[in-house]
Amino acid sequence: MSLERVRIVGAGLIGTSIALGLSAKGVAVDLIDSDERTQNLARDIAQSTSLSTPQIVIFALPTEAMPLVINREYALNPQSTFMDVGSVKTEPIVHIKNSELPLTRFVPTHPMAGREIGGARSARGDLFVTRSWILTPTAECATESLELVGELIDTLGASAITLDAAEHDRAVATTSHLPQITASLTAMSLESAKEAWLELAGQGLRDTTRIAASDPALWAQIIYSNRNEISNVLYGVRNNLEQMLLALNDPSAIEALIAAGGRGRARIPGKHGGSAREYTFLPIVIDDKPGQLAAIFNECATIGVNVEDLSIEHSPGQLNALITLALSESDAMNLSTHLSSIGWNVHPVRK
Amino acid sequence: MSLERVRIVGAGLIGTSIALGLSAKGVAVDLIDSDERTQNLARDIAQSTSLSTPQIVIFALPTEAMPLVINREYALNPQSTFMDVGSVKTEPIVHIKNSELPLTRFVPTHPMAGREIGGARSARGDLFVTRSWILTPTAECATESLELVGELIDTLGASAITLDAAEHDRAVATTSHLPQITASLTAMSLESAKEAWLELAGQGLRDTTRIAASDPALWAQIIYSNRNEISNVLYGVRNNLEQMLLALNDPSAIEALIAAGGRGRARIPGKHGGSAREYTFLPIVIDDKPGQLAAIFNECATIGVNVEDLSIEHSPGQLNALITLALSESDAMNLSTHLSSIGWNVHPVRK
Repeated sequence: MSLERVRIVGAGLIGTSIALGLSAKGVAVDLIDSDERTQNLARDIAQSTSLSTPQIVIFALPTEAMPLVINREYALNPQSTFMDVGSVKTEPIVHIKNSELPLTRFVPTHPMAGREIGGARSARGDLFVTRSWILTPTAECATESLELVGELIDTLGASAITLDAAEHDRAVATTSHLPQITASLTAMSLESAKEAWLELAGQGLRDTTRIAASDPALWAQIIYSNRNEISNVLYGVRNNLEQMLLALNDPSAIEALIAAGGRGRARIPGKHGGSAREYTFLPIVIDDKPGQLAAIFNECATIGVNVEDLSIEHSPGQLNALITLALSESDAMNLSTHLSSIGWNVHPVRK
Repeated sequence: MSLERVRIVGAGLIGTSIALGLSAKGVAVDLIDSDERTQNLARDIAQSTSLSTPQIVIFALPTEAMPLVINREYALNPQSTFMDVGSVKTEPIVHIKNSELPLTRFVPTHPMAGREIGGARSARGDLFVTRSWILTPTAECATESLELVGELIDTLGASAITLDAAEHDRAVATTSHLPQITASLTAMSLESAKEAWLELAGQGLRDTTRIAASDPALWAQIIYSNRNEISNVLYGVRNNLEQMLLALNDPSAIEALIAAGGRGRARIPGKHGGSAREYTFLPIVIDDKPGQLAAIFNECATIGVNVEDLSIEHSPGQLNALITLALSESDAMNLSTHLSSIGWNVHPVRK
């Protein structure tokens, strides 16, 4: 069976992006929204048409809004496969169990694609290209439904990963929701800080609070949907925090806690899904003007050095910037020697 | 008076880097260490010589080790000005008050330069170039001592900033020590996570825990030295965490807390010490191979676009990478149009 007709309920960033991506591959798409203006805008963007007997109906709306549409959509499309795209996966299954739609026909999914901002205006057909798209099917799920959803994910250029729904929610509570909350809690401490203090902010504070700038309404919904798992994780953090407070008078106890954090950090996998990888860091002072970064990357390309990651740090009141490249150890040594020899201001390599 | 003779007690990264920087500018340096092998290594690196009547004696050792050397150094060098380089500033003043050295001759300082790793081997004479170097003089401090230390900082290419010592310690408790601790506490939660969960780690988790990889022994000493200020800050975080735990059943309460974090994050100043600046983000999918970044930065230079910051994200199991450039709004629009027109895979601009 080939994918030809898809109905999408909800014309936000994800729904409209799916519509654009499928349209581009010749799949007919019917994109609807409860808000008439949103629907008209999204239909203009995504060449949506009314269609009957969709093979898949996608719930591309907040998980808490699913109960408002499940029974209506099932009555309209009694032969279809249904899927959702929420970032928490046990709650949609509960909604389906409380509806008339049989579990056999529902596939819970979670595309791991940018959701920092919403709205059809931000939609893009290639939003899912190279991204992971998680499926958390129940035991009842029909093979045919799973295959159809797999074909849709494939059509959009994403990679399907299958997980248990409860396992998924526990995993994202730790890997996605926890960092959002600790970044927000850390940043909350800056609200009452004196302005002069913030002039001392370095890269550590910037990195640690970067995602505190995320959309509060979107995150309120995500956190609320996964509140049980998040609660467990946060009690763990509170326990760690109590340990740190008790350790403050004992340097060796502080050291043990910081070391435990280092072991946790080292477990995050490196690129390409491989095991954790330690980069070597090469700091370079550059003039803060166009062309400097290009010149450095040209030198990297010339001697075949692959930059794994990098950061740029601007000193307050200075027109210089410090760029730090993350490299393999041998690339770092080669590049350091090469750049120094042609006059760049290269600092010593850091492990 | 011109700076000609400096004695440095402690041949770690900071002490040896100061020695290298001063030697390069023709200042005679005497670098000593309680460990004979360390001293010999550092003296080889930094061209140290024995000298009498140093104008400045620098305590470049852990703050808790200062009481072991203050009286000896004062007896040896009764005419000198003294300074320290610790990252906490009230504690060294207490050590001086408990010694024979008069407060008039002591300048507490804190160079804001890389201290992720220690050791003379990592030292570099330009470590302080473009960096801030904080002075926290007491009311008793002699003008002549302050001027000498100012000349030293100037010679090393750093910018002097004067702060009250207690104010400094409160400021770094929030801007430097707090992010280290919350990064470590977040990363501690990963220690017991299943391996499969960590495959779902995205840029948010990576950013939020990056500094959890810092040296535990160094941070134990820093945190211990500033434990009173840090304790106040951590009780604030615990209070915020309790509020989040109480809010988990109420989406609007969660939203208010995430929004408060966003307001705190927005207070971190932008580059060049100016007020906070909102960047526009331009995501681009590239092949993960040498030359791709150079090509993008060449295009940036060609059309005069200045890259403010960037991140590189590797999808698990993929050979593509997503590079996100932080730009001014107009630069983002120009670059997006330009790169798209010559075939790059540019994603929609994000605010």
